Amino acid sequence: MIQVTLIQIDNYGPWTVTPGPRAEPDLQTLQSRLYGDLEREFGAHGAIVFFNRFDNLIAISNGMDYDDHLLIQQSIRNRYPITISMGVGTADTAYEAQKIATKMIQNGGGAQSANRCEVLNIDSLADDDNSLVQIAHIDINDITNTLTDIETAFDTSIKVYEVLLALMDELAKIGGMCFFIGGDNYMAPTNGISKDQLREALKVVDKKTGVTLKAGIGVAKQAGRAADLADIGLEDIRAELVDDSVLLFNDLDEY
Amino acid sequence: MIQVTLIQIDNYGPWTVTPGPRAEPDLQTLQSRLYGDLEREFGAHGAIVFFNRFDNLIAISNGMDYDDHLLIQQSIRNRYPITISMGVGTADTAYEAQKIATKMIQNGGGAQSANRCEVLNIDSLADDDNSLVQIAHIDINDITNTLTDIETAFDTSIKVYEVLLALMDELAKIGGMCFFIGGDNYMAPTNGISKDQLREALKVVDKKTGVTLKAGIGVAKQAGRAADLADIGLEDIRAELVDDSVLLFNDLDEY
Amino acid sequence: MIQVTLIQIDNYGPWTVTPGPRAEPDLQTLQSRLYGDLEREFGAHGAIVFFNRFDNLIAISNGMDYDDHLLIQQSIRNRYPITISMGVGTADTAYEAQKIATKMIQNGGGAQSANRCEVLNIDSLADDDNSLVQIAHIDINDITNTLTDIETAFDTSIKVYEVLLALMDELAKIGGMCFFIGGDNYMAPTNGISKDQLREALKVVDKKTGVTLKAGIGVAKQAGRAADLADIGLEDIRAELVDDSVLLFNDLDEY
Amino acid sequence: MIQVTLIQIDNYGPWTVTPGPRAEPDLQTLQSRLYGDLEREFGAHGAIVFFNRFDNLIAISNGMDYDDHLLIQQSIRNRYPITISMGVGTADTAYEAQKIATKMIQNGGGAQSANRCEVLNIDSLADDDNSLVQIAHIDINDITNTLTDIETAFDTSIKVYEVLLALMDELAKIGGMCFFIGGDNYMAPTNGISKDQLREALKVVDKKTGVTLKAGIGVAKQAGRAADLADIGLEDIRAELVDDSVLLFNDLDEY
Repeated sequence: MIQVTLIQIDNYGPWTVTPGPRAEPDLQTLQSRLYGDLEREFGAHGAIVFFNRFDNLIAISNGMDYDDHLLIQQSIRNRYPITISMGVGTADTAYEAQKIATKMIQNGGGAQSANRCEVLNIDSLADDDNSLVQIAHIDINDITNTLTDIETAFDTSIKVYEVLLALMDELAKIGGMCFFIGGDNYMAPTNGISKDQLREALKVVDKKTGVTLKAGIGVAKQAGRAADLADIGLEDIRAELVDDSVLLFNDLDEY
Repeated sequence: MIQVTLIQIDNYGPWTVTPGPRAEPDLQTLQSRLYGDLEREFGAHGAIVFFNRFDNLIAISNGMDYDDHLLIQQSIRNRYPITISMGVGTADTAYEAQKIATKMIQNGGGAQSANRCEVLNIDSLADDDNSLVQIAHIDINDITNTLTDIETAFDTSIKVYEVLLALMDELAKIGGMCFFIGGDNYMAPTNGISKDQLREALKVVDKKTGVTLKAGIGVAKQAGRAADLADIGLEDIRAELVDDSVLLFNDLDEY
Repeated sequence: MIQVTLIQIDNYGPWTVTPGPRAEPDLQTLQSRLYGDLEREFGAHGAIVFFNRFDNLIAISNGMDYDDHLLIQQSIRNRYPITISMGVGTADTAYEAQKIATKMIQNGGGAQSANRCEVLNIDSLADDDNSLVQIAHIDINDITNTLTDIETAFDTSIKVYEVLLALMDELAKIGGMCFFIGGDNYMAPTNGISKDQLREALKVVDKKTGVTLKAGIGVAKQAGRAADLADIGLEDIRAELVDDSVLLFNDLDEY
Repeated sequence: MIQVTLIQIDNYGPWTVTPGPRAEPDLQTLQSRLYGDLEREFGAHGAIVFFNRFDNLIAISNGMDYDDHLLIQQSIRNRYPITISMGVGTADTAYEAQKIATKMIQNGGGAQSANRCEVLNIDSLADDDNSLVQIAHIDINDITNTLTDIETAFDTSIKVYEVLLALMDELAKIGGMCFFIGGDNYMAPTNGISKDQLREALKVVDKKTGVTLKAGIGVAKQAGRAADLADIGLEDIRAELVDDSVLLFNDLDEY
């Protein structure tokens, strides 16, 4: 089971324009700092946070319980001018888990409701026995030579976001999620998706966008360790230790 | 003339996997902190930075000269395990300016060259007389009620990134750039693009993606002030003070 | 038993002046960010860090083991231009524990040795059965009206640091430590020091410096909780719920 | 003339205990981040901030005007749960300038007044003609071998704070200020204090505390540059290029 936490800034839209619009560099700083801080807080427990839309962040939080979440929620209140609500869900696929997590937050009130504040709704938690996180680290083959060093910066960006959108679309279809993590890198929680399915999805995106993708996949009890294993897989493909576009390492005997 | 600074982490890809892959939560924190810090440094001079791809950031830097850039470059070296290179260009459109800025960096060496370190190449600077920044702040009408509060978090994200990609495509065609700034918000440097052209581009994206977009546009000598004006425009449209999907405010007599 | 971690930046002095002296605002930023980050990392495990001398920080780390420390050490390496070494010791008093922790680091090499890097030496860890942290939160009675609002800022600071030094001296004599935590606040790990001893120490400092001190004291298995209890004690004294300059709350039955 | 800005968090004491006491690791993080951010904001303009008491920070702000201060004040409001007030004064000595800056804040209301919010009172600004900052960078000779590597961490700290207090006392007497900047380093704005006076003050502190101090002194139009020159002076003394405990470099012809 994968455990997903959806983190949503309470009533953020209205706050950004009250009393008048707040300076954009300040908001960008606020958002990036919040993201960095949440990454540290969740990371300290072996979890990972993706910035997603910055006002709605998504964490793979296996191994974290109610108190762990509460401590983070209070810490944000003590250091930021805004507060956060959180919903937690678990399921066999990442897509299902985020659906439940979203519902948990929505049950607490609307994203722009002035009344909703610091909701922390947990549908269920993965326990140590059934905890399992599968994460794929995907990147574009040789982007430096084919794009970064020859195209304009913005054209490279268009291509990178085109690939992102295609990956989001393809993976959502088979129960996954996908997030941009900088450069030409994407990270995809993919519980329940087989190597064959993932290889196929990458090929569809390759064809649609004209790049060549590869993916290391990691399976572990927690997201941080799964990402580490995925990184090693990706490195082995880069080093041509295998002749495949996907490579999976797992920590779990029973897998 | 709009002045664009392209900021690129030196040899970042190789560093992230040396000696072995570095933990992803650490890299995400590093990237978000670097973005936040650059936003403060450029913001202190009235400029704005967009995270773009995190390892390649794009700033609208009108009003900043060689020494301002150098101080930032040195400061990053003193506080981060990585260094940055910068290229600066000016042009009549944002797209052209980033093209020149990219060239300036590429002239200094490849993004994954171990030899390139702290390049600071300036093609030209906007001077006070000809400095002009036009920025559009674009958002999706009523996303909270149509998406955030009813769809799953990830489905909302797919839509938001679909709109982003369509905006990047449409605006690049007419000399603009476009960046995601969180939530359902996009910021687009659009020097040389008329209100009619922008209204038309938004309509194309509306049709392609099924949302309804609106845009406040600001014109000023510097990016920070232009963004402030764009925010006010967007608020006026939201408040239905005008019956149009675009509204422009400008600071400059001669405009 | 109280568990103390001494955190020392490796070879920091030489680094600050290589190749030439680095800009002081950059170093101040680096140090404050490192402190803030370590506070988050240790805080996520219920511990507390004191900035002490910024290049030598002291944490009360009960509840944290080797792996917890290692993850933090690696995270700093991945996000900062410097690395850190750590020594851990446990004892019946805070002073003794820091003495052992210091020895653990010194065994690894000198603070300005170019060869020492990322030492992590643990003499012993407090286990759940014998873990106990006593922390006093000390402040100056009514400093706002007697100093801040009537004296110059720097004269107030002289008084605050005079009190700090007197507290450090008095508490070290009886096995404690004391740290400045901002404003007119001090936090003192005081395992093994009785209420009577602490009341007496405060009186000595009062007499020497001309202020009046009070202290809430907390006892718990971890530093974060002990500090929370100390805060409540301090608030109760402020609210005149007790007629004493010290008030202790404890979480532990066996205490 | 030296220009000093006193920065004070509005109504901070009451906020830290409302509704109940806030977690100390959160407050320490808030304070260290605020310090780091202010250091960047002021540093971007060539100024320097000292943390002083964390809720009362002192900047040497020559070269910064009303708008520069206002932008910083607004930025803090947009990113922190607290607001700041600022007072600015200029004088021939650092001590006098901070006295005026303090008065400017006190005129706006008490530090714990719920009514005072975002005061920005400027008595006067140094103009380009009369702007002059003299800063001494003071450190302890060979602290690594005499203290850090042989004494316990806390005993070394006691000595470092003993030296700090003695320096604060001695320098205040002759119109200076002194701040701890980490390690065994102190930075002292010393406008109007001659090399002979400073050498004498260091000797008094040496005698009182048993250490041996040295100081590089820098004179420039702005604090950042003055600190750079002071650093070079300190390095030259360390390298025994001069046979004196003080060495002054200045940028200004007229000095």
